[in-house]
Amino acid sequence: MTRKYVYIFCDGKADGHGTMKDLLGGKGSGLAEMTNAGLPVPPGFTITTEACNEYYAAGQKLPDGLWSEVRAALAKVEAAVGRGFGEPDNPLLVSVRSGAKFSMPGMMDTVLNLGLNEQTLKGLATQSGNERFARDAYRRFVQLFGKIVLNISGEKFDHALEAKKHAAGVTLDTDLTSEHLDELNQQYLAIVREETGRDFPSDPMEQLELAIRAVFQSWNGRRAVDYRRINRIDDTLGTAVNVQAMVFGNLGSDCGTGVAFTRDPSTGDRHLYGEYLQNAQGEDVVAGIRTPKKIAQLRDDMPEVYEQFAAVAERLEKHYRDVQDLEFTIERGRLFMLQTRNAKRTGKAAVKVAVDMVSEGLIDRDAALMRVEPNQLDQLLHQMIDPAATIDVIAHGLPASPGAAAGQVVFDPDEADELHKDGKKVILVRIETSPEDFHGMVASEAILTARGGMTSHAAVVARGMGKCCVAGCSDITINYAKKCFVTKGGQTINDGDWITLDGTHGHVIQGHAPLIDPVLDDNFRTLMAWADEARTMKVRTNADTPADSKVARGFGAEGIGLCRTEHMFFEGTRIDAVREMIVAETLEERAAALAKIAPYQREDFIGIFKEMDGLPVTIRTLDPPLHEFLPHEQEDIDALAAKMGISSALLTAKVNALHEANPMLGHRGCRLGIVYPEITEMQARAIFEAAVHCTKAGVKVLPEIMIPLVSTVAELRLQEAVVRKAAADVFAETGVTVEYLVGTMIELPRAALTADKIAEAAEFFSFGTNDLTQTTFGLSRDDAGRFLPKYVEMKILADDPFQVLDVEGVGKLVEMGVKLGRSTRPDLKVGICGEHGGEPSSVEFCHRTGLNYVSCSPYRVPIARLAAAQAAIADKDGARASSGTA
Amino acid sequence: MTRKYVYIFCDGKADGHGTMKDLLGGKGSGLAEMTNAGLPVPPGFTITTEACNEYYAAGQKLPDGLWSEVRAALAKVEAAVGRGFGEPDNPLLVSVRSGAKFSMPGMMDTVLNLGLNEQTLKGLATQSGNERFARDAYRRFVQLFGKIVLNISGEKFDHALEAKKHAAGVTLDTDLTSEHLDELNQQYLAIVREETGRDFPSDPMEQLELAIRAVFQSWNGRRAVDYRRINRIDDTLGTAVNVQAMVFGNLGSDCGTGVAFTRDPSTGDRHLYGEYLQNAQGEDVVAGIRTPKKIAQLRDDMPEVYEQFAAVAERLEKHYRDVQDLEFTIERGRLFMLQTRNAKRTGKAAVKVAVDMVSEGLIDRDAALMRVEPNQLDQLLHQMIDPAATIDVIAHGLPASPGAAAGQVVFDPDEADELHKDGKKVILVRIETSPEDFHGMVASEAILTARGGMTSHAAVVARGMGKCCVAGCSDITINYAKKCFVTKGGQTINDGDWITLDGTHGHVIQGHAPLIDPVLDDNFRTLMAWADEARTMKVRTNADTPADSKVARGFGAEGIGLCRTEHMFFEGTRIDAVREMIVAETLEERAAALAKIAPYQREDFIGIFKEMDGLPVTIRTLDPPLHEFLPHEQEDIDALAAKMGISSALLTAKVNALHEANPMLGHRGCRLGIVYPEITEMQARAIFEAAVHCTKAGVKVLPEIMIPLVSTVAELRLQEAVVRKAAADVFAETGVTVEYLVGTMIELPRAALTADKIAEAAEFFSFGTNDLTQTTFGLSRDDAGRFLPKYVEMKILADDPFQVLDVEGVGKLVEMGVKLGRSTRPDLKVGICGEHGGEPSSVEFCHRTGLNYVSCSPYRVPIARLAAAQAAIADKDGARASSGTA
Repeated sequence: MTRKYVYIFCDGKADGHGTMKDLLGGKGSGLAEMTNAGLPVPPGFTITTEACNEYYAAGQKLPDGLWSEVRAALAKVEAAVGRGFGEPDNPLLVSVRSGAKFSMPGMMDTVLNLGLNEQTLKGLATQSGNERFARDAYRRFVQLFGKIVLNISGEKFDHALEAKKHAAGVTLDTDLTSEHLDELNQQYLAIVREETGRDFPSDPMEQLELAIRAVFQSWNGRRAVDYRRINRIDDTLGTAVNVQAMVFGNLGSDCGTGVAFTRDPSTGDRHLYGEYLQNAQGEDVVAGIRTPKKIAQLRDDMPEVYEQFAAVAERLEKHYRDVQDLEFTIERGRLFMLQTRNAKRTGKAAVKVAVDMVSEGLIDRDAALMRVEPNQLDQLLHQMIDPAATIDVIAHGLPASPGAAAGQVVFDPDEADELHKDGKKVILVRIETSPEDFHGMVASEAILTARGGMTSHAAVVARGMGKCCVAGCSDITINYAKKCFVTKGGQTINDGDWITLDGTHGHVIQGHAPLIDPVLDDNFRTLMAWADEARTMKVRTNADTPADSKVARGFGAEGIGLCRTEHMFFEGTRIDAVREMIVAETLEERAAALAKIAPYQREDFIGIFKEMDGLPVTIRTLDPPLHEFLPHEQEDIDALAAKMGISSALLTAKVNALHEANPMLGHRGCRLGIVYPEITEMQARAIFEAAVHCTKAGVKVLPEIMIPLVSTVAELRLQEAVVRKAAADVFAETGVTVEYLVGTMIELPRAALTADKIAEAAEFFSFGTNDLTQTTFGLSRDDAGRFLPKYVEMKILADDPFQVLDVEGVGKLVEMGVKLGRSTRPDLKVGICGEHGGEPSSVEFCHRTGLNYVSCSPYRVPIARLAAAQAAIADKDGARASSGTA
Repeated sequence: MTRKYVYIFCDGKADGHGTMKDLLGGKGSGLAEMTNAGLPVPPGFTITTEACNEYYAAGQKLPDGLWSEVRAALAKVEAAVGRGFGEPDNPLLVSVRSGAKFSMPGMMDTVLNLGLNEQTLKGLATQSGNERFARDAYRRFVQLFGKIVLNISGEKFDHALEAKKHAAGVTLDTDLTSEHLDELNQQYLAIVREETGRDFPSDPMEQLELAIRAVFQSWNGRRAVDYRRINRIDDTLGTAVNVQAMVFGNLGSDCGTGVAFTRDPSTGDRHLYGEYLQNAQGEDVVAGIRTPKKIAQLRDDMPEVYEQFAAVAERLEKHYRDVQDLEFTIERGRLFMLQTRNAKRTGKAAVKVAVDMVSEGLIDRDAALMRVEPNQLDQLLHQMIDPAATIDVIAHGLPASPGAAAGQVVFDPDEADELHKDGKKVILVRIETSPEDFHGMVASEAILTARGGMTSHAAVVARGMGKCCVAGCSDITINYAKKCFVTKGGQTINDGDWITLDGTHGHVIQGHAPLIDPVLDDNFRTLMAWADEARTMKVRTNADTPADSKVARGFGAEGIGLCRTEHMFFEGTRIDAVREMIVAETLEERAAALAKIAPYQREDFIGIFKEMDGLPVTIRTLDPPLHEFLPHEQEDIDALAAKMGISSALLTAKVNALHEANPMLGHRGCRLGIVYPEITEMQARAIFEAAVHCTKAGVKVLPEIMIPLVSTVAELRLQEAVVRKAAADVFAETGVTVEYLVGTMIELPRAALTADKIAEAAEFFSFGTNDLTQTTFGLSRDDAGRFLPKYVEMKILADDPFQVLDVEGVGKLVEMGVKLGRSTRPDLKVGICGEHGGEPSSVEFCHRTGLNYVSCSPYRVPIARLAAAQAAIADKDGARASSGTA
């Protein structure tokens, strides 16, 4: 069976239709749909994406049979328009455009006026009665074809044009005379000859073939490949080619061309939004040489055309049940539609449109929920740089935590803290951060680091606090001694200078850029309410403080999935007691130090329990290796030793003794609690004392104690015994009993592999997919920066596995863990608390795998709620589809 | 159903028999077996291990019904002996002994003469006609019972005895008179009263009950628990209790007692071996107060008894088909057998006895192979400290690599190298070793490190070279500046002092201890040949040099399973080129440096291929992170920078840039080859050029190129392409083609989880279980020392998973990897090259899992061969058993 490579749209009838995006691309399927709907579309045809793929499969050779199909299609277009392709007296001109399934910057620009040569040029002049127009059309064609198809630098043509304008003493292209243009065209043809070593192709069929090949080639152009990588678009989709009879918006003042959206893509407001240019071709709108008019102006300029366009726009929006992005041309008062496609929009507009369309009866709630890309909600939750502002980006880093903030540069966390107390806005700039810097991070508006990835300490902590962060900014070199950083471009930013960070895009901006505040409006709340109805999976938050808890609950968190106790250790002066505990040589000394920490911990938990009244709170016992709490520079060690009243040598020895070759795989997690059960006991007592205290005060407390880094059930049993004993002691002492659960993180491969055993002792599992990813891949997230970006670029990995859960490997362990765990304990509660808990595609995986909840940083809770809803809807739709009731 | 707790042996008939070790313990089943065989055994009974377990299950309460069974058994013994337990005029005395399934130091010592009190003492005097004997028996009983059952410090009794001897003016116990003994007994009873607050229990039934309880208690005594942990004996086995009528070897010169082996347990030579004491009780032999006579002396002293005993010994050996360890007592010229059990023996004896017994027709070859504990072979392969020598152990460390060696202490690897060249014997002492120290390790007789575990660099490299190593010796503090180390005991050992290391036991010994050389005799070769016939799994070696390869082939290696290329990088001056390569800023510079390394690598491979003529050689491409090849101390960096002619600042920056937080999870393995494919290309070219060179020289070469640290098939495909291109290039250039394979290490959980995908590109798998254990457990072997010993002690883990493969977790991944890999490629060759490849129980797992081969360090090859044979035999036996043909 020979394939059909060419789909015609012509005379109100098209071979294809709107659902054939895979085969015809977005543009081609839109043209077919509009043609079938009887809208005014210049006739033409679409060459399929399959033809593109076969072109590559055959070693960049056009598929057999394609060309005869193209000739046949061209004949129909000629008949419909009443002109002949390459016919000197009455030439048909065509445009050639790329058109992939997804709109994609970097794909080939449009070639207009294809079919012109010295002969047809004359025909066009006669036909249009306008020699200047014809020569201008030829100029545009040679320039576009030369640049796009023949790969000649656009500057060559621009220089010739500028020189001509200069010689003619004019400033606008439109002021060049027909003679000027004729001379310019000869120069252009000479440029082509010089650059390519041959004459400009004059045969229209050769022009067409070259243009089609150029579209296919552009699929694998550098920019297109990069875009697909960044946006995770499959490389094997291929692009279609649209060949369409030209219509001209530049034949006079009753002509024009424009682009418009059926609703405002920034706000979602329901009115036509766009712009057009009178007497112009499409490229002029984009080129920005002339300032276009607002679309509303068209109503005054050409009322009938406007009404017709408005009606078409409404019809298309109703037809597609979504905001449309339209291109049109007016040729001598006649409207032609050149494109319709679903419009890109801001997060705010996406939410408003989705909610409005439900009110308008256009779509149902499920459809509305599927319309909003969960990650877009980020825009609604954070400050942003005013899109209207002119900004000076001086360095690029990783978009580690979204939002924007301005502040004065500070390099020292203590200083950040002091300045903050003085009411200053500061941005903490560090080579990288560690838990010791926590107070400085809290005090700052935003954080900038030179090293570390999307899951570095700075990034994780900043996201947790909803604070803007640009991480791993290797464009800057920090000099702590001189208190400054120097950008790649050579600019020096000193302590106290103002900068602005854009954590959504990873930009470092000089000075104080204007910011706009986020607005959580009714539309947002409505959509979120629908999401909550639709989803079956719970959404919790990772929160370590009452403040975080409050924010997260405001965003709809249904409990805490991960409360890390170690961040609490750094607050205020309690770090002193923590350090005493670490340096202690005997159990008695350690117990004395722990006794000092206990009241702080109890207060922390009371604060959190109160904020989470009625909701479960999962508290993880101490996790990081103890050396993270000690200083490492000799100067700091000396200072601490003096403060603690011990010898510097002793403290140095302790720091050295705690040094680890691979701390990630070292003495941490439950391994600490097993060697020092008194630490777990102190923490458990603090939890239960807080729980009892709250219960007495009428707060409903549901504590879930989580043991980290378990690799074998024996570890869990030992720690469980300590926790249950502490609970029993506290309940006996106070006479109040509180229900609680004891469970574990599943964050090591061995835990997942032996989950059936571990479930014997665990009342719940929480997959710690950050660490599980590290151990499954044997990949340190702190060190992966040296090769992981290259891995993603080379497509060795589809995504950074610390951002998007690796379903094939890590996911397999998660699936095994869930299955084995529930084989032992069918009602096992299972959640996820890694960074992936707030990443939409990972949330979808969690839903499919049957998790009870995901837990993510507070500012990602709405994203997770929507992603969970989408997963549930997709699941329902899938089930409907497979049961045949759809 | 009530259980039977008591098994009688009496009057030539026993309830139990020799195969009931689980229930009756080794001793009890031996007594039953001897009784049934008609041998002269004093009558008695055994309380089962089940009774012990029920005692613990019930909270240390004797099981219901036990006591009435004991009374009934006692009655039968009374009838057989014709005496009554507690009968004043004609008392029956008994011994009470523990007896677990496995002989176990730390279990309860024997209580003799139980049943004595003030009344029965008189009866015994009358009965024996020897008052002094009776009083001495009472003294022994009170002392033993006081110490063992009542937990009174033995010193109390010893002091009283010494004081009495001093007062009496005698030096030997035997010189004390009957009156002295009477006085002493009163003192002993006073001691008991003082220490326990009550009178010595005079009721024989109470004595018996207390003694039985004490045996049960001793099962969970500290020493017994430790012993079981070290020897991996199940805690749930429990101990039996043997109660047996006393016979007396101390009633005169026609009496005696002794222990003997049916063959020499040190050499395996076939003659009675042992010693006896005339006129003595059993404890006197062990106590070493009097020097016993050789067993041959019995032939002269009591020829008839000797003949009877020799006949009994031969009969028992034939009966058990194994060397027996016998205890006997002669009472007034009459022989009584008190114990028979399989004898413990040295490795050398084990091999000789096994081979001899096949010649003698006692056992078949399979049985012979099952008789030798594979790890015992270590004793045959290494120098040992002369067991007769007196040694001064000054520190204990981990037995990291077996054997013994003496040398002069040196702290610097360069110095070690120089002294070695001067013909000195040196022992390298380091805090820990790194690849930079390699040349110093080669030059040393043995290696001592203060830090690092059984799989630390020092341990792994030493085992590879068959060189003695004591690692992680935290008993010593090393001071490089002062060139000395200080032991925990305060001794200072200086540079140049002689020490001896015992790597089999982890001892550091002062001075030059006398050493004995290993002998690989014909028995060893015979047994190994049988092993090779029996096993189905191949045994390869991990070897990085021609010298290692030669040693391993001598030990029977059937190829190389892991040839690490990085150790080669440190040899001679080539490290300079390696460092140039690392510091290179451009591809050209790096290529130039690689070109310098290439000839060295080629020569290395030629040497190895020649040694392995006809056998496969698996070569792993570069694995460790590059910073391992650079110095880290500023002083060394400065020196290297000067040598390389670059600025110290530049080199420091490079070293810092290569620093990793978790190098184990960092930029290493194939991640290096992917970012720098030119490294893999250089290595592949060197391999193929060497292979072609050897092929031309008539050497049969079977190279297998192994890509390390693969987590996804895409990595493997990229590296495979580099390797195959290098092969094609070399074959084209030389006109010679060599067959080769490309495969991968499976050493990350993700590789095992996606083994079906990886097998699409891999022609073989080799499980790198060292790294796989690290990532599966999330456990750095460099850091685990802080808690892993505690984990094993607390039984959280049964074994150190770096020594014994963790079948439950890591093993599950291995099984998945094999199954998934072969689902894609049924003929996939699969091996293991981690440290576990030479550990017997892990080898057994590998056999069960269907691996084609194990690979281990050269000196463990014989162990792996025997372990593989045992696994195959067990498998065959299992199959026979389950098919019912056994």
